[in-house]
Amino acid sequence: MLTNELKEKLIEIVGNENYEDSKTTRLVYSYDATPNFQSMPDAVISPRNTKEVSEIVKLCNQYKIPIVPRGSGSNLCGGTCPIEGGLVLLFRHMNKILELDEENLTVTVQPGVVTLDMIKEVEAKGLFYPPDPSSMKISTIGGNINENSGGLRGLKYGVTRDYVIALEIVLANGDIIRTGGKLAKDVAGYDLTRLYVGSEGTLGVITEATLKLIPMPETKKTMLALYQDIEAAARSVSKIIANKIIPTTMEFLDQPTLKVVEDFAQIGLPTDVQAVLLIEQDGSPEVVEKDIQKMADICKQEDAFSVQVAKSAGEAEALTTARRAALSALARLKPTTILEDATVPRSEIAKMVNGINQIAEKYKLDICTFGHAGDGNLHPTCLTDTRNQEEMERVEEAFAEIFALAIDLGGTITGEHGVGVMKAPYLEWKLGKEGIAAMTAIKTALDPNNIMNPGKVFAKESRKRVVVAK
Amino acid sequence: MLTNELKEKLIEIVGNENYEDSKTTRLVYSYDATPNFQSMPDAVISPRNTKEVSEIVKLCNQYKIPIVPRGSGSNLCGGTCPIEGGLVLLFRHMNKILELDEENLTVTVQPGVVTLDMIKEVEAKGLFYPPDPSSMKISTIGGNINENSGGLRGLKYGVTRDYVIALEIVLANGDIIRTGGKLAKDVAGYDLTRLYVGSEGTLGVITEATLKLIPMPETKKTMLALYQDIEAAARSVSKIIANKIIPTTMEFLDQPTLKVVEDFAQIGLPTDVQAVLLIEQDGSPEVVEKDIQKMADICKQEDAFSVQVAKSAGEAEALTTARRAALSALARLKPTTILEDATVPRSEIAKMVNGINQIAEKYKLDICTFGHAGDGNLHPTCLTDTRNQEEMERVEEAFAEIFALAIDLGGTITGEHGVGVMKAPYLEWKLGKEGIAAMTAIKTALDPNNIMNPGKVFAKESRKRVVVAK
Repeated sequence: MLTNELKEKLIEIVGNENYEDSKTTRLVYSYDATPNFQSMPDAVISPRNTKEVSEIVKLCNQYKIPIVPRGSGSNLCGGTCPIEGGLVLLFRHMNKILELDEENLTVTVQPGVVTLDMIKEVEAKGLFYPPDPSSMKISTIGGNINENSGGLRGLKYGVTRDYVIALEIVLANGDIIRTGGKLAKDVAGYDLTRLYVGSEGTLGVITEATLKLIPMPETKKTMLALYQDIEAAARSVSKIIANKIIPTTMEFLDQPTLKVVEDFAQIGLPTDVQAVLLIEQDGSPEVVEKDIQKMADICKQEDAFSVQVAKSAGEAEALTTARRAALSALARLKPTTILEDATVPRSEIAKMVNGINQIAEKYKLDICTFGHAGDGNLHPTCLTDTRNQEEMERVEEAFAEIFALAIDLGGTITGEHGVGVMKAPYLEWKLGKEGIAAMTAIKTALDPNNIMNPGKVFAKESRKRVVVAK
Repeated sequence: MLTNELKEKLIEIVGNENYEDSKTTRLVYSYDATPNFQSMPDAVISPRNTKEVSEIVKLCNQYKIPIVPRGSGSNLCGGTCPIEGGLVLLFRHMNKILELDEENLTVTVQPGVVTLDMIKEVEAKGLFYPPDPSSMKISTIGGNINENSGGLRGLKYGVTRDYVIALEIVLANGDIIRTGGKLAKDVAGYDLTRLYVGSEGTLGVITEATLKLIPMPETKKTMLALYQDIEAAARSVSKIIANKIIPTTMEFLDQPTLKVVEDFAQIGLPTDVQAVLLIEQDGSPEVVEKDIQKMADICKQEDAFSVQVAKSAGEAEALTTARRAALSALARLKPTTILEDATVPRSEIAKMVNGINQIAEKYKLDICTFGHAGDGNLHPTCLTDTRNQEEMERVEEAFAEIFALAIDLGGTITGEHGVGVMKAPYLEWKLGKEGIAAMTAIKTALDPNNIMNPGKVFAKESRKRVVVAK
């Protein structure tokens, strides 16, 4: 609970209109896109500039009040659920594109800018910002940076981390620092820029970011390969890469996902096949043509029974949009949709998909799997109902087994969604006690009072590792 | 000084033949490629595996003995000079390529592998590891990772950091951790992988690394543009990028450097011009042809008085090799060569080069400038003699002004060479007191006894910022 004294000081900083603690507002910010996590903040605050952020953080540090920086709350790890109360910090005033520098190929933004709005501005200049989380229509750049968001183009172009080259950060003590610059090369001290990318708001508040841009690829083409056999699809993925082709995207959808997506998007996707690969290549027309042809040949060699290249940009766009809608489509089926992002080396995709199916069967659950096959980042998605306590326990057991399997295959518990509160109990499985200890040391060093998004990344208790009977 | 008790314990770990403390050996490891820094270690130790590294580190942590991990000592920041004594840790036994995984496009290596040896193995499989520090014939991958080495291809392909995806690290307490994986996406906790890349051995010992590879570009072409005007060369660089072409390399050499390089390499470089751009593009034949043609046109528009495309791979190789030899060529002229790597946004190159020339004149020094124009990473190189105390003082003043200028232009004090001991006094200029405090907190959290390469990155005293008269 905030004291009246503190409340008054906060209002003095941001003004009455930017401090809200009505029950309604607090309720709105008590949860994010992650099912099953809810907790009331004490207040919601909207600073207008970095100086105000710094003053708020200083006060919170003094009074030991939690701060949860929040973009649009579209994350899927409970990363912005204020589980220990305190202040939810919004960036609705700090949502400007500050500069688009065409000479240095950078864009400088405030954290509250919506990802797609920025992408559109950038593309209007013939430039390209590749990270494209499926939530990009509503997500903010600040959220993307804090979660190190990925997307469909990660295979060829990398993730958010690969495009953040400078940050302004308010540290937990209120100090304002600037890291990096409009520089392709900078080794002046530790790489704080990348340490803060993906730190989920637990080390400070990001108040400004400079992002690297690249020239817009001249053209792109999209194709669809259909399979009656999941392994054949997985073999195609491996063989394409082994043939030294790195496509922009290589998405996998299993039959249950296909059915649901087609029902939602109505664009004529086949629903009687076991698996689909949606492949896109971009670049110069010659290279795209050559690569698409070579990939089509490989898919056929690996038993795709049909390979179709989209005939128009419109048709290609429809396919990609349908894929991006997978989560929304699945979410219509049952009250609760739990989407995970266990990730494996791409050579292990077939084993992973088969393993997920076996686990779903064992626990009698509906799990659809889709995701970014090219980078091994799969999204097993469970359709369930949080009100069914018994089923929810099976869901939890099943996902624990899925995480364990991913780690056994050389993978990780989260490829692009973050740890948040949801996966914190499993983090030790990936990092070991020693790895967690190193991260805890960093957290304690930079936020000794644990005010920055407390309860995230680090769990009070780690779950016991599941021993899967082989 | 090591006690006899500790010495015996260390010998017990690595065996007699891997522990050396003769004066000769200690002298050999008392300096690295950086002029003007020398300090005797107490001993030199060569562990055979990670377990031995861990045991050594544990002992050193207990006895508070400094450890300096060292590859080939080719760094230019005094990064491996054992300025506080202690153990120099060599990787001559840990120098294997452990796995080349063609399905996941990764190579896993021990730190002692020589960069070029690994590159050759990788290229034999049609794969490509882009980071190419000029020292790659002798540098080790471990050294590259600790310094976050760059090179000529940074503009298009990034630096070492962009290719390190997993590490095995021995922490300062002797714990062994593994970060990352063969994964394009991994957000399980803080990005320790990138925190350790470029941390200059101050946070732990890297004992294994997995590096990302990409398909080898099909072909490449090289061209040379000659200018009678430095600004025209700089304008060409900006205009090429503004035209949405990202070449593999775009190297700049000024007249003094050209003369020296030609004298050394004898390949017919012109020595009567003010500046040269050496430009390389790689990719599919169609794209390379188109880009080279467009870049040649741009250079001519911007007053290059001659543009020549290398007629053969041999001729292209000779040009690149000559450029790589710049430091060696310059080093022949005077007893001491001090090479810096102040870096600016690429839009500021002309201002930076002109500024360097004015500073050289002001302090009556011979400074040649060459470097990676495309990424604003310049190497002003001073030819001097450490025995001339009066001149050395002017050299120091001049470089202080160069660093100050770089920062004023939005740049950094080091683009790819590291901070080490040489640039530590200037780090605060870039990061501010608050930034240094954040980095110190991380250092103290991960190495509380300050045994890991002490005296590097963090200076006992920061230099006062030079106020340049405008």
